[in-house]
Amino acid sequence: MFHKREKEESGDTMSFSYIGIIRTPHKTREGTPIQPPGAKGIIGEVEVDPAFIEGLKDLGGFSHLILLYHFHLSEGYELTVCPFLDKKPHGVFSTRAPRRPTPIGLSVVRLLSIKDCTLTVEGVDMVDQTPLLDIKPFVPDFDIPDGDIRAGWLEQNSEKAQKMKADNRFL
Amino acid sequence: MFHKREKEESGDTMSFSYIGIIRTPHKTREGTPIQPPGAKGIIGEVEVDPAFIEGLKDLGGFSHLILLYHFHLSEGYELTVCPFLDKKPHGVFSTRAPRRPTPIGLSVVRLLSIKDCTLTVEGVDMVDQTPLLDIKPFVPDFDIPDGDIRAGWLEQNSEKAQKMKADNRFL
Repeated sequence: MFHKREKEESGDTMSFSYIGIIRTPHKTREGTPIQPPGAKGIIGEVEVDPAFIEGLKDLGGFSHLILLYHFHLSEGYELTVCPFLDKKPHGVFSTRAPRRPTPIGLSVVRLLSIKDCTLTVEGVDMVDQTPLLDIKPFVPDFDIPDGDIRAGWLEQNSEKAQKMKADNRFL
Repeated sequence: MFHKREKEESGDTMSFSYIGIIRTPHKTREGTPIQPPGAKGIIGEVEVDPAFIEGLKDLGGFSHLILLYHFHLSEGYELTVCPFLDKKPHGVFSTRAPRRPTPIGLSVVRLLSIKDCTLTVEGVDMVDQTPLLDIKPFVPDFDIPDGDIRAGWLEQNSEKAQKMKADNRFL
């Protein structure tokens, strides 16, 4: 069945609908892991709106999912930020900071099980009740680039994400 | 400088602003590569709104970027789709089809150069004039999962993306 979208595009903005909610043990931004490597073993639930249940078919064959979600606690942004992983300021687009012009978050999580509209996943680094925008299957051929990868200022710093927790700087 | 966002959240929708536009050689959806592996060597330009130039600082250290963009030609969705890469129908969330409840696209591209607000990138699989939502640095520690990865129905089919082009089915 084709669902027509009411196009809510006006000038330079576009309205997107939530398709569910992400439940995690992180009740406040403070103390939430800052990336999936810091959330190893941490289990969350992705509750998809029952209206979309048919869209979950065949998802169980994938070990990992890309979750796109709204950084709903972020109320504005700066173009230069001091990220959690460095003491030096960086351009916001060279960081994964939640306070960014378009506050959409992205995390790759491990899919453990699906029951009805509830996906149990591991590696949740978002705050409880985060609104879900999209679920995509993680596909190595599409999502892992060929050849050498350079990670700029994060080259020396990304490992720290395993241990660091967020504070309130990006609310 | 902190930029306050006018929160345009109402119920289950959220308004996001475009931060730029992606220019590619693909003038129509038909014939556009369906994923970055099918766009090897294809160069595009990401034109970021000059208002955000400060946010691009330090991006040049990264070899790969994650682009989030609006599938602006997609006017609705189906929950079960026949994707380009298979003859069998699949739940939309187990596909990367553009016609999805929240039409946000994601591609990992190689960054070749930055001049002012223009990023030259390789591997563009989106149609010309696609509205840009966000740029994130690709960080292997965050974006490549540890351990075995299973890619469900795409396990046997994702390689085909190197050769296949889109048709008009998802407009």
